[in-house]
Parts: sequence; structure tokens; C-alpha cells
Amino acid sequence: MVINLRSDTQTLPTEEMLEAMRNASLGDDVLGEDPTVNKLEKLSAEMLGKEAALLVASGTMGNLCALMSHTHPGDEVILEAESHTYYYEVGGFSALAGLSPRFVQGEHGIMSVDKIKEAIRPGDIHFPHPTLLCIENTHNRGGGTVYPVTLMDEIAQFAHKQGLKVHIDGARIFNASVALGVSVTELVKSADSVMFCLSKGLSAPIGSILAGDKGFVEKARKVRKMVGGGMRQAGIIAAAGIVALEKMVDRLSEDHAYARYIAEELIKVGGLNIDLETVQTNMVYCDTSPLKISADQFANLLKEQGLLVSAVSTDQIRLVTSRHITDKEAGEVIATIKRVIENVL
Amino acid sequence: MVINLRSDTQTLPTEEMLEAMRNASLGDDVLGEDPTVNKLEKLSAEMLGKEAALLVASGTMGNLCALMSHTHPGDEVILEAESHTYYYEVGGFSALAGLSPRFVQGEHGIMSVDKIKEAIRPGDIHFPHPTLLCIENTHNRGGGTVYPVTLMDEIAQFAHKQGLKVHIDGARIFNASVALGVSVTELVKSADSVMFCLSKGLSAPIGSILAGDKGFVEKARKVRKMVGGGMRQAGIIAAAGIVALEKMVDRLSEDHAYARYIAEELIKVGGLNIDLETVQTNMVYCDTSPLKISADQFANLLKEQGLLVSAVSTDQIRLVTSRHITDKEAGEVIATIKRVIENVL
Amino acid sequence: MVINLRSDTQTLPTEEMLEAMRNASLGDDVLGEDPTVNKLEKLSAEMLGKEAALLVASGTMGNLCALMSHTHPGDEVILEAESHTYYYEVGGFSALAGLSPRFVQGEHGIMSVDKIKEAIRPGDIHFPHPTLLCIENTHNRGGGTVYPVTLMDEIAQFAHKQGLKVHIDGARIFNASVALGVSVTELVKSADSVMFCLSKGLSAPIGSILAGDKGFVEKARKVRKMVGGGMRQAGIIAAAGIVALEKMVDRLSEDHAYARYIAEELIKVGGLNIDLETVQTNMVYCDTSPLKISADQFANLLKEQGLLVSAVSTDQIRLVTSRHITDKEAGEVIATIKRVIENVL
Amino acid sequence: MVINLRSDTQTLPTEEMLEAMRNASLGDDVLGEDPTVNKLEKLSAEMLGKEAALLVASGTMGNLCALMSHTHPGDEVILEAESHTYYYEVGGFSALAGLSPRFVQGEHGIMSVDKIKEAIRPGDIHFPHPTLLCIENTHNRGGGTVYPVTLMDEIAQFAHKQGLKVHIDGARIFNASVALGVSVTELVKSADSVMFCLSKGLSAPIGSILAGDKGFVEKARKVRKMVGGGMRQAGIIAAAGIVALEKMVDRLSEDHAYARYIAEELIKVGGLNIDLETVQTNMVYCDTSPLKISADQFANLLKEQGLLVSAVSTDQIRLVTSRHITDKEAGEVIATIKRVIENVL
Repeated sequence: MVINLRSDTQTLPTEEMLEAMRNASLGDDVLGEDPTVNKLEKLSAEMLGKEAALLVASGTMGNLCALMSHTHPGDEVILEAESHTYYYEVGGFSALAGLSPRFVQGEHGIMSVDKIKEAIRPGDIHFPHPTLLCIENTHNRGGGTVYPVTLMDEIAQFAHKQGLKVHIDGARIFNASVALGVSVTELVKSADSVMFCLSKGLSAPIGSILAGDKGFVEKARKVRKMVGGGMRQAGIIAAAGIVALEKMVDRLSEDHAYARYIAEELIKVGGLNIDLETVQTNMVYCDTSPLKISADQFANLLKEQGLLVSAVSTDQIRLVTSRHITDKEAGEVIATIKRVIENVL
Repeated sequence: MVINLRSDTQTLPTEEMLEAMRNASLGDDVLGEDPTVNKLEKLSAEMLGKEAALLVASGTMGNLCALMSHTHPGDEVILEAESHTYYYEVGGFSALAGLSPRFVQGEHGIMSVDKIKEAIRPGDIHFPHPTLLCIENTHNRGGGTVYPVTLMDEIAQFAHKQGLKVHIDGARIFNASVALGVSVTELVKSADSVMFCLSKGLSAPIGSILAGDKGFVEKARKVRKMVGGGMRQAGIIAAAGIVALEKMVDRLSEDHAYARYIAEELIKVGGLNIDLETVQTNMVYCDTSPLKISADQFANLLKEQGLLVSAVSTDQIRLVTSRHITDKEAGEVIATIKRVIENVL
Repeated sequence: MVINLRSDTQTLPTEEMLEAMRNASLGDDVLGEDPTVNKLEKLSAEMLGKEAALLVASGTMGNLCALMSHTHPGDEVILEAESHTYYYEVGGFSALAGLSPRFVQGEHGIMSVDKIKEAIRPGDIHFPHPTLLCIENTHNRGGGTVYPVTLMDEIAQFAHKQGLKVHIDGARIFNASVALGVSVTELVKSADSVMFCLSKGLSAPIGSILAGDKGFVEKARKVRKMVGGGMRQAGIIAAAGIVALEKMVDRLSEDHAYARYIAEELIKVGGLNIDLETVQTNMVYCDTSPLKISADQFANLLKEQGLLVSAVSTDQIRLVTSRHITDKEAGEVIATIKRVIENVL
Repeated sequence: MVINLRSDTQTLPTEEMLEAMRNASLGDDVLGEDPTVNKLEKLSAEMLGKEAALLVASGTMGNLCALMSHTHPGDEVILEAESHTYYYEVGGFSALAGLSPRFVQGEHGIMSVDKIKEAIRPGDIHFPHPTLLCIENTHNRGGGTVYPVTLMDEIAQFAHKQGLKVHIDGARIFNASVALGVSVTELVKSADSVMFCLSKGLSAPIGSILAGDKGFVEKARKVRKMVGGGMRQAGIIAAAGIVALEKMVDRLSEDHAYARYIAEELIKVGGLNIDLETVQTNMVYCDTSPLKISADQFANLLKEQGLLVSAVSTDQIRLVTSRHITDKEAGEVIATIKRVIENVL
């Protein structure tokens, strides 16, 4: 049996989702006539406390639609130095949205208002004009770390005072919400737009949501059409998304508990550097350098033992929990890693 | 009962498709691990006679990926003056691919080699360099008209000699294939890339295919990721696509027969100008000007009688047949239009 | 002796311009500190009746800055089918400004309000949103044809009602002004922005002006910097530009008279089709098809006889008059063409 | 009397340049017919040891043409974190060239091969593909620091092995050459393209040069036309450029000596942090934080005393020497700064 901790993107739909898709009412969503999509968009907007929402094919598409709707090519976007939008979205912020990035170095991905302040340059004919700030919550490369509500609000308030819009890359915003014990509405209330994924921990097969005020979502809908994200009988996808929102949110706390458990046990095993402070949601980052072995090599050794993890830099591997991990798998994960470390040492 | 002839984009999935989706084997397609997607892409490539194929979220996305993979911003793309890529794809050829269009006036959408030749300007520092020719087959705004094999080959041969790549916007290429009685392989053999839709007449809920050689598809796959078309458990969609290709192609001839039948009957009714020569597949364009009424007004009168059609210009309505139209509906369509015309006159 | 009628872009600076450049006060124009540039921009704004003006390196740069300042990528720009911005500017409207063009077929380049109205499509998720209309006055490929004041005003009024901005590509707007006998201020009063060239008939060596309201020019100044048009001691160029505006405008009537004279004499010669109605400024277009010879071939025969003209399509040559053409050259032009035609026939 | 150390961009043309411009042979450079431009481009290519060269309106335009000619939108460009192309060129690398930047942190702007190696990520569907490395020599924000020949060659060799092209932003490459005592040819020999400025220390009023192999320069020429940098009688500018190259290079050593002298004297004065190791060419960066005063405030105090300097960050001012600084000005600079510091303390 293979255990897969590479990413929560690999979750499979639940039986309930499959049944919902089998029986979904469908229409042509390009014309706004798919009742299941309409229901999902309405539900999403309500859960986020925003006026409107839009189903998109992926988190990358949601972020791209947000960038292109909030900004003009030649503008500057302020984001964390290792944010997903910069790091993992194929440079679409530049190639398609024409934005110059201005990086803020976060602590485990978490930016402070002071650092953001430093990043903003005074107006000058030589500088692109900053118009958007992005916050990634939870922050993937930071370790699945969480921005608390007060920080979100402080950052947004500062950004708004500078004339910037605020977009949240909330691919895993429900993980943040569950970890903090606050509603998503509360968590995103000061942002102009939010994207979250129905896939990942929530386990829908396809789809993300982009939300904001009506004018913004109208713009984003046109951008979605332009990039080819207008899908016909998209109710198929939306049906699973509704189940994801209604049934799968609360259980994310289990993923968090397993991540925590695995991290704590691995610390006991020794051999890997793990910063327990960053293990706030469903991810565990492990530094392989104490083993004098690259992350790639370590990941390959684990793979040979039936455990799939991601090497995300030369010396970091990442373990991500999801609904497919239960006590049994968690136990095997720890045993396998322990065994491999012992072989390496 | 409402009869909907606005577009074949509005077809619903068949029971067999719904079952296939319910039972699809799934994986993470961003990692190339969804077996159902892989099966669909392989099947598609084989049917088209191309090396490789890629599932995309829509025809617009497929065409966009093709444009961006074949060309460089600042290049010129040669296409028919009312082609879908120019007319209906939100200007993505320019906003995202950065291409300057050079139009060829087709006859009912069908370009001749001579007209293409005229459109190509000599090399000059002032002119963008043409690198791609697009052919839309069947041609939507031309009336669902068909490019025969010999013309396809002639055009492609000429384009290649000029150093241009050739892309086929074959959203309805299977309609063309069925109408001509030739295999799709034969029809697209001289093109560098082809896009076709699993939705539309083939009735899958979501998805299109882009095919070409391996290097091209690899590029297109990266562009797809950049525009946000990388979908996780996309096997859900692909499962229906496989049924579409295996079971739904041959029956397109029925749609064509109904379109022909409706056109001929409406000519008998009189009052609308219909060019029977353009009724080659599943569309009927009707000119409302003899009724001294705009296409919009006429479409509204039909809607009041439960018949939905598209007004596609100030004086043209479009009727599109699909698997939801059978003898009963066809009869009602003719009766309804007749009744409305009599009221108008 | 070679006579050069290829283009008025080839005019050399006058002695007075050379002296002005020799003695210009200079500063760093990127910092707004070049007094000669500032004087030229102020003078230009006054002559155009606009709030502000900007020196740019070329007409292409001026039009590009206008497009990028008025619009957003993904917008639609409405322009004449053979307008300079579409035809001769290397596709920058698409590659850099991301605009989808919507063409209006003009009569000899002159668009009517009715044709513009037809080109504007209703709002639709599939269509790029039109936000800008461009008018080329005089229209180069139309034959140097002139939009009269009333038509300019009508078109601009209609465009503004539709929510479109209006930009004038007035590379040769002073030719239009002189031909019409109205001030440039009057001619461009209803437009949001205007570009004109200091080179061409006005004979400055380098430079064009873009004018509009202050907010627009501020945006355009930033775009100019981005495309690399911020020049340091640009007073060198501006000094000649001031002479061009103060001393070279009125004499354009001479160029027009020579163009007219040449056209009339060539009609007497016979053998070329010349539409005298289009000879409104300093250009003469001649159709070589009656000679059963291509424009290229004819231009080459003239070149052998020391007369340079442009072949601007397969069967059209263009002759452009400028301050370097006087009675003597005009007489030789006619004699040479006559001689070559006689040889051809 | 005001002394201006803000930038060497503010140098005025010499008498010899003014005379050369007054008497230049001119033609239409868009057609390649300006003899003075042709002479300058030939001379530049020879001095750089490259096949061909192109006159552009500014360093920004030269870099932009290089980026757009070497790469494809969606590619990644590797450059120093505070490089001019990222910091001061209005985001054109993104807005126009569509490139995602990957930053290398240099030591005073000087990148090492190791740091470059770290910045290059393995191939992955999520990452833009790196195709270009830029080196800024001398490095402006690093303090006018110089890359020695061996490092240039090592970096280029490494980059080429990775399949990257190498472009040198050599706005002040002659300063580097003079400081190192090696020819520019030797210094840039391993790069694919080089841009340098005729303005700045070389004192021409306008213009920069972009050089590389013939195919590259041909592409760049087309990009130059697209961005509006095709200028007509550009020989006016080129004439001064020829003087700049023939007469103004060697004297850059004087600027360097003055910068060194000023830095050393200011260190004796005390109150400002100055890193003498970075004073390698014609710039002196001074940290105002020991004075507990912002760079802006300090620059304003100096301005009141007739000394213009640039505040380039919250705590850094920059002094740049040029041919307008001689013993007298240098003495006054030191005296003025000393006076202001004494007042502040």
C-alpha cells in the first residue's frame, strides 16, 4: 500500500460528492443558466460574507482572474517572497497580468505591516505604481502557517490607506479558519477579494471560488471567459463543491491533528529538523540537512518504502495530511520515516 | 415545453456519461496521474492522427493554448474575418497572446487560397510577422459550413510553404467529418494542431481537446497551467469525454438531417431569407429582414412562444440542432416559426 | 540627381532648425528640467487647445502611449481598416497594448458615423469591451485624405455617447488643418487626445507630440518611460520642433499644390489610374494596373531613372511631396514618369 | 552656483558634440539610410566586439529590446535583486516583456555563480522557464560597483551551460572598463548582448546602444520599431554619440578619481557611513543614519546649500561625479556637506 502525503490536491471525491454529481441539475453556465453552479456561487458568497462569487477551474485561475480584475499591466503587486502566486503559478502574474512583483519577506510566510511598509516605494516616474497586495492564508511554503484575524485586518487597513486593493489567496482559507476557530467570514472581512479551493482538503475533484463585490466579480467573470474558464454544464463540478462546503469543512481539524501528531512523533525520532511552530494546519516541513542528504534523495528513499512526499527545495520535504490519512496511515508514516532515517544514519 | 435551439453548447450529458463519471478512476492530472484523463487524451490523439492531446476546460482555452504555443507576441495571425477566435473569444488572441490579426474574407466563412495569399504582406520593418494561420471547420458564423479535405490540404500546404503553422479551430470538427463522410484523421492530417469540443453536439458537459505533436502539446500543457486550466481530478470530466468520442460521433448526422429539414420547411413557409447552401451541418441561419423586423425582436417573439433561438447580428437568427431535437421538436419548431411569421406579416 | 517622393518622413532639418539645435538650452527631461522641451510641450498644447503635451520619439510611440493610457488590455479599439496604427505600427496595439481591433471600412480612409455604429457590438460576455476610437487625419493609406471638422465632431460626439474615448492619429494633422483652412485647435477640439509629427512635412529631424488633458498626459509620460522613450537632453530635438511649429506649418500648402499639380499632369499623361478626389494634401496614389505591371516593378523602373516612390500594395505606388520638391523637381517627376510609361506601353 | 551630483545623466553635450550635430549627414534611419547612425552603429559594434549594434533612445529601451528579443513571455529572467532593470524601468520586463523575475542577492550588486546556481529551480510544470540572465556592470544601486572580467566570464559560462542567454546592462560599461583597465571588448566578450549609454558619463545628450549578433540585432530592431523607437533623421543624435565614443571614454578615470577623493574626504569629515570598497567608479553612496536623519531630509538640507544629490532609499544618498565636476566643485562639495553635517549634529 502506498501512502501519499505529497499534497492535499490529491484527495478523491467522497461518495456523497459522486452521488451529487450523478444527480445534479445542469444548464449552460456561460449563459448563467446552470442552477447548481448558481447555488454554489451563492452559498460561497454567503460563507465568505461577500456580495458575489465565481466558480473557476483552479486556484491559479482564481488568483489570475483576481490580479487581472484589480490591476492594470504595469502596476506593481506586493506579495510575500515565496507566495504561491509568485512561486507556483507559472509566472502568470507577469506573462498575463503584466504585474511587477514587489516582495515582502515574511516570517514563515507571514508578513508584518512594517515589512510591507518598507516595500512600498514613494511615487516616482521610474517605479511601477503599486495597486494590489496579496496575502496567502494559509501560507504554503511558510509551512501551512496562518495569518490571525487581527493581522489580516491590520494589513488590509494599512493597504487600503495606501490605496491598494487586498486579495487573499485562500486556497486553504478553511484550514486557517478551522485552526483559528473563527469563521471564514470574519477572517476575510477586510479583504476586497478572496480565492479558495474546493479541491485540496475539502476533497472536491475540481474547482475553486473567487469572491468579492459585484463589480469585481463581473470583471472576473469576463477575465475567466477570456482565459478559457467559461465551462458549459459546470454544475457537474459545482455539485461536488456544494458537498465540500456543507460537509467537509469541520473535519479539516482532523487533518491538522494528524499533521501535529506526525510532526511531534518525528521530532522524537530525530534526524530531521522540524519547526513545530510552523505546524499550524495540515502540513509538516522537514529539513533533511542533518541527515546530510538532499530532500530529493530522502523523498526517493521514502518512495521506495511506499511513502510519497514532496521535495520542495534542496533540503526540505513536505508532508501534507488529508482525509485519506487516518490513525493507521499516520502510524505507518512515522514508522517508515523512522526506518529510512535509521538506514541513512 | 420550451424548445432550445440557441446552441448545441446546451446539450446535457447522456445517462451513459453520468454513469461513467460516477465510476471514473481518478488521480491528480496536474501530475499526469489521472488514468481517465490519460485514456481520453490517448484516444483523442489516435482519432485525430496526432502524436499527443490535451484536455482543456473549453474551446476558447484550447484555441488560446494553441495560439500561445505556436506564436510569439508581436506576430501576426491570419484568420477568417468572422472567425470564432476573433469574434467570440473576448480578444484573448490580443490581450493574452499579443497577436495582430490579419483577416481573410471567406465565403460563408470558407477562405480560399487566393484570398489568403492576398492577405500576406511582404516582409517589412513596419509589419508584424505572420506565423500562424487558423481555420475554423465547421465555421460557426458562416452557417456551420464545412471546409472539404482538398481545400484544407491546399490551404495548409500553402501556409506551410510561407512558413506558417496551421491550427484548426475544430470545435465542431466531427460535424464536418460526418457531413463530408471522411474520417477526422483525414480531415486534419495537414494541420499542425487541432482543437475540438467534447461538449456541443457530442454532449459531454465540459471539456475540449487540443492535439498536435509532442513538443507542441508539452508547450500547450504549460500554457494551460498558466491560464489556470490545470485541473486536479479531471477524470470526472474526461469520463464523459470518452463516452462522447466512442458513442456520440455518428449520431451527429441526425442533427444535420434535422437542420436540413427545418431549413427546407422554413423556406416553404417563406418570410425569412435562408441560404440552403450554407445548411451543411447542424445550423440554420435565417435573415429576418424580409419581415422588416430585427433579429432581436423576432427572437423575442419566438421566445414568447417557447422557442429559444440566438440573434447573432441585427438581422440574423441562428437555429442549432442537437440530440435534444427529434421529430416532435422539429415539427413544433416549424409550426411555431410559421405562426409567428404570420402574426408579423 | 535623385528625386525622393517616397515619404515626407525623409525631409531634412532646415538651417534654422540646425542653428536652434546648436544653441538650445538643455537639461534632463526625465526630471522635467529641459527648458527647451518644456517650451515645445507648452507651445504644442496651446496650438492644439489641450491642457498638456508630451514629446515622444516617433508617431508610433505617440499612438502607443495614447492606446496604453486610454485603455486596458482586453479592451476593443475601433479604427479604420487600413489605419496606420493597424497597418504600419508592427502590431503594438496588440503585442503591447493588448487591444482587439474592430475595423470600420472607410471611404478612402474616411469613416462615417453609420459605419462606426455598425461596428459596435452589443455588450456580451464573449466580446471585448470597446473603449477607444481612433481617427487618422489625414489618412495615409486613404491617399492623404482629410476628415472635415463637422465629421470629426460628429464622430467624436457619437463615440463619447457610447462611452468611448477618441484619439486622433494626426501624424499629418497640420496638413489637414492647412487643407481645410481651419485651425488645428478647431479640428481636434472634440478629441480626447491627439498625436502629431514634428518630422514629416514639418521637417524636424526627430519627434512627435502627444496631447490631451493633464491626467492623460501624466499617464502617457509614465508609459513613455516604460517603453524607453524618456530621453535625457531632449531639448536638442525639441529645439527643431519649435522651429517646425513656428515656421513650417503654413508652407504645407505648397506641398499640397505640388501634389495636386503632379496628379493633374499625370492624369493628362495617362496610363495610371489616379483618383483626383483623394489628392487632398501632399500625397498622390497611382494605380499601375492599367499598365499591366506591378507597383513594385513600376517603382523599380522609376528608380532606374532617379525617381524614388513607394510601392504600397501590389498595384499602388505613392508619391509624397515635401519642402524638397519645387517647380524643378515637380517638372522632372512628371517627365520621368511619362518617359517610363511610354517605355512600358 | 548650484553643484549637481544627482546623476551623470545630467551631463551636457560638449562643444565638439554640438558641432558634430550641426554638421551631421542625415537620412531616414527607419529605412537604414542615415549615414551617421550607420557609422555610430558600426563603430559601437567594433568597440564591443559584437557583430552588430543598434541605436536606441535610452538605456531602458535598450534593455527592453534585449529582453523582448531574447525571451518569450512566460519565461523567467534571472537578475540581481536591486538591478536597474527591475528597480528603475517601470516594470517593463513584466508589463511589456511578460517575464517573471528571479532574484539573486548580490554583494553590493555583484552576484556570485553560487547564488545564481541557487536561484535556478529544476524544471517543473509550475515554474516559468528561465531563459535569460542579466548582469548590470557597473551596478548602480550596488554603488557603481564593477564585475571583473573573470567573474563576467564565469557567470556567462555557467549561464550558457544552463541554456540561458546573457545580457549585460552596461549603461556604464565604459566606467567598468576604465576602472578595470581592460577593453570593453574583453569585458563583454562572453555575453550575448550588451547595452551601454552614450549619455551619462560619456556626455552625449540622447541615446544608448544595444549590440549582439546579427540575428539578435535584427530582432531588436523590429522591437525598437514596435515600441516607437524608430527615429527618422537620428544622425543628429548619433553624431554626438560618435564623439562620445571617440573622445570621452578615457576621461571617465577623472570622474572616478573625484568620486574617490570625495568619499575619502567625507570619511574624514565623519557623520556619514561610507563603504569605501564600493567606491569603484563615479558614485559615492552615503548612509545618513548615523546623523539620525532621513536621506530625504539630508538631501534637502544640501539643496538649500546649493548641492544637489539623490536620496535613493530612506537612509542612502548618492553622489555621482561627471565631467562637470572639477577640483573647484569637488572642494565645494566637501565643504558644503561638512557644513550641513555640523549643523545637524
